[in-house]
Amino acid sequence: MTAEPRAILSMNAFSGEAGDDPLLARRLANMGAAAVLFYDKPVEMVSGQGAWMTDRSGATYLDFYNNVPSLGHCHGAVVEAVRDQIGRLNINSRYMVEIVDRYMEALKATLPSDLSNVVLSCTGSEANDLALRLAEVWTGRRGFVVTQTAYHGNTAATTEISPSAYKKGGGSPRIRTVPAPDPAVYGEDLAGGFAKAVAEAAADLEASGHGFAGMIWDSIFSSDGVHADPQGFLKAAEGAVHAAGGLLIADEVQPGFGRTGVMWGFERHGLAPDIVTTGKPMGNGFPMAGTMTRPEILSRFVEEFGYFNTFGANPVAAAAGLAVVETLRSEGLIARCAAAGATLKAELEALAARDPRIAAVRGAGLFLGVSLGREDAPDGALVRAVLAGLGRRRVLIGAAGRYGETLKLRPPLILSDAEIDHFVQALADTLAETP
Amino acid sequence: MTAEPRAILSMNAFSGEAGDDPLLARRLANMGAAAVLFYDKPVEMVSGQGAWMTDRSGATYLDFYNNVPSLGHCHGAVVEAVRDQIGRLNINSRYMVEIVDRYMEALKATLPSDLSNVVLSCTGSEANDLALRLAEVWTGRRGFVVTQTAYHGNTAATTEISPSAYKKGGGSPRIRTVPAPDPAVYGEDLAGGFAKAVAEAAADLEASGHGFAGMIWDSIFSSDGVHADPQGFLKAAEGAVHAAGGLLIADEVQPGFGRTGVMWGFERHGLAPDIVTTGKPMGNGFPMAGTMTRPEILSRFVEEFGYFNTFGANPVAAAAGLAVVETLRSEGLIARCAAAGATLKAELEALAARDPRIAAVRGAGLFLGVSLGREDAPDGALVRAVLAGLGRRRVLIGAAGRYGETLKLRPPLILSDAEIDHFVQALADTLAETP
Repeated sequence: MTAEPRAILSMNAFSGEAGDDPLLARRLANMGAAAVLFYDKPVEMVSGQGAWMTDRSGATYLDFYNNVPSLGHCHGAVVEAVRDQIGRLNINSRYMVEIVDRYMEALKATLPSDLSNVVLSCTGSEANDLALRLAEVWTGRRGFVVTQTAYHGNTAATTEISPSAYKKGGGSPRIRTVPAPDPAVYGEDLAGGFAKAVAEAAADLEASGHGFAGMIWDSIFSSDGVHADPQGFLKAAEGAVHAAGGLLIADEVQPGFGRTGVMWGFERHGLAPDIVTTGKPMGNGFPMAGTMTRPEILSRFVEEFGYFNTFGANPVAAAAGLAVVETLRSEGLIARCAAAGATLKAELEALAARDPRIAAVRGAGLFLGVSLGREDAPDGALVRAVLAGLGRRRVLIGAAGRYGETLKLRPPLILSDAEIDHFVQALADTLAETP
Repeated sequence: MTAEPRAILSMNAFSGEAGDDPLLARRLANMGAAAVLFYDKPVEMVSGQGAWMTDRSGATYLDFYNNVPSLGHCHGAVVEAVRDQIGRLNINSRYMVEIVDRYMEALKATLPSDLSNVVLSCTGSEANDLALRLAEVWTGRRGFVVTQTAYHGNTAATTEISPSAYKKGGGSPRIRTVPAPDPAVYGEDLAGGFAKAVAEAAADLEASGHGFAGMIWDSIFSSDGVHADPQGFLKAAEGAVHAAGGLLIADEVQPGFGRTGVMWGFERHGLAPDIVTTGKPMGNGFPMAGTMTRPEILSRFVEEFGYFNTFGANPVAAAAGLAVVETLRSEGLIARCAAAGATLKAELEALAARDPRIAAVRGAGLFLGVSLGREDAPDGALVRAVLAGLGRRRVLIGAAGRYGETLKLRPPLILSDAEIDHFVQALADTLAETP
């Protein structure tokens, strides 16, 4: 074990002094201890286009990290939609604006038909915070099950269900964690083993008096190290959640909007979640998020609490969101993502066949995890070295996994074959120079 | 008493059937029970400019409700700033973008110098949710004191400190409420009486085992019915908070950015809050918010928890926020707000002198409350009738107060004298026709 669990947020974080960088000095003075910057020498960016960003010196960076501008940086359709609507009207949803409904209908057309109510908010954290409250009111219980290194948001409530956000302490008494669905933990019967762990955790919550309100997962287990296969293995755990009387919340903030090669991550597993939450790529960078559920679940909640989100469902966000949904379709980006992801995965597997330090290549579509080290000896230090080496080559990626042992790759869905080659060559060069 | 306490959120809410309005039918199908629409016949808006919005039929509405587009709808400086930046780059704060620091510095220049760390997020709810967590970690205690009809957000944690969001039930065990600083409650010694109530509530939290982490207020007590005067009366309560070992959180989501005739609501009372939160007008409608505090408070929190906000501190928000701060200065809007507010208040007081149903005119700058009924018989029904009558005259306002007895007026800071006259005439006409 080369790193403590729960260290993911700081895997690639700058932690030094400003030195002679005046902007870095300003940043540290302005954001203080909560500044989260990447790389030993944080980068000042000035522009972005497609899969690339450009820094102050004019150097360009291939962005395999950022899963927010999923259509590519500054995608024309989104930029134009925002520019148009922000000059017309930008108000709250106490008045009707037609584009807001047009957007909700376009979104709903991609979702299971029973999830026909939409609550638009501004961040994935808000969307998940509300989802927890919906499940609590619906079930009359307060306990949730999550995976061991999950991350679901930064509010007080969503931090409780995010073990990876705790730097110290034992977490919340109303939360139970289960290991992520990793064959290294559960062995041959991944589906059954994971479902059994979920059932036991739910039973433990019931026994504790908190009760079991539900389980929340992002179906690709982003922070846990990316666990995607075999397709359908989550069906058994969904059954365990429902058998224990809980709701299943599909956190699609990371896997949603085509990233795994289908519109929604839960589709890959044939799931029927009770609540779906979305965020990050929903507006290609415009702050927006959503919580979709069945009308009876929302009605029950609204009997107890008033809920209004001032910026949620504003027409500028709707314009951005509508441009995203329409562009996914008009540019055929979900199919493109599936194809590009398959190409990238095959090239990474070829690299793995030549380099024993690559333990596994996992994932779906353009959400891939590459574990370094051995199955019994995850190598977070090597991950840190590779992040830094790729950074020097101006290729940006992330890290995941309980021990920070996984390279996390999430390039934009518009990725070209040339950009795939560029990345794989940079990774191969980096591994070659790293002892 | 004409309405139950805690009914404010529904004071002017549509609650009927869609009838023959196809967009309304779509809205109810899309948002379900969480749709919060104003007026018996909700209005479809298509554009906005200055203090006015235009509906689908071309009719124009004077917006005395919306305190988000505080510079006026679609203010050119904000529109252009967003249009420019969204075409350049829109990323998270793991990389540096200079305009983000330029913005934080412009914001900090308006705040007490000890509040030198800024955490940018997306909504006032997020800003207050974080503020609570900062106070909890700093004090090691979990209890908060709020006013009886306070509203501070829609997350799980901020709902706990928002009695006005509860439709049923007894609220959170870790919260104590005190009556808002209303002379009708506290009598002659408003400052001392309110401070004593705060001290007793804090002591009760200490005795209960929750401990006293702090108090949060918006200094104009928006939801409690608008209580602004006399200037400085909150200083004693601030002393009580600190004497009990708690932090004072100034929720400036409503009074901030010039609305009360000074930059910050707490300035009117000469306060030195430990944490300041902002939202609504910060980006004139662009979703953005902030939590500002002393570096040691933020550092202590970050020792316990990782905090990162994906959309917070994005450069498009920074561009919008910078345009707001610069426009407040370049157009002299804070002085304009103070002058326009004084004119409006004087005209309302003249109306009150002629109409005994106006119990009081309160507030500061362009944040005014007009209570209807008698001091011992607040008249929420009359408020509802006036809201509806003004609505028929296409003048939009809100309601506040424990019994919904207060007209809440928050027109944009660019309000002209002609628009003030338009409003006062509409209110006089409405009162004249209302029995």
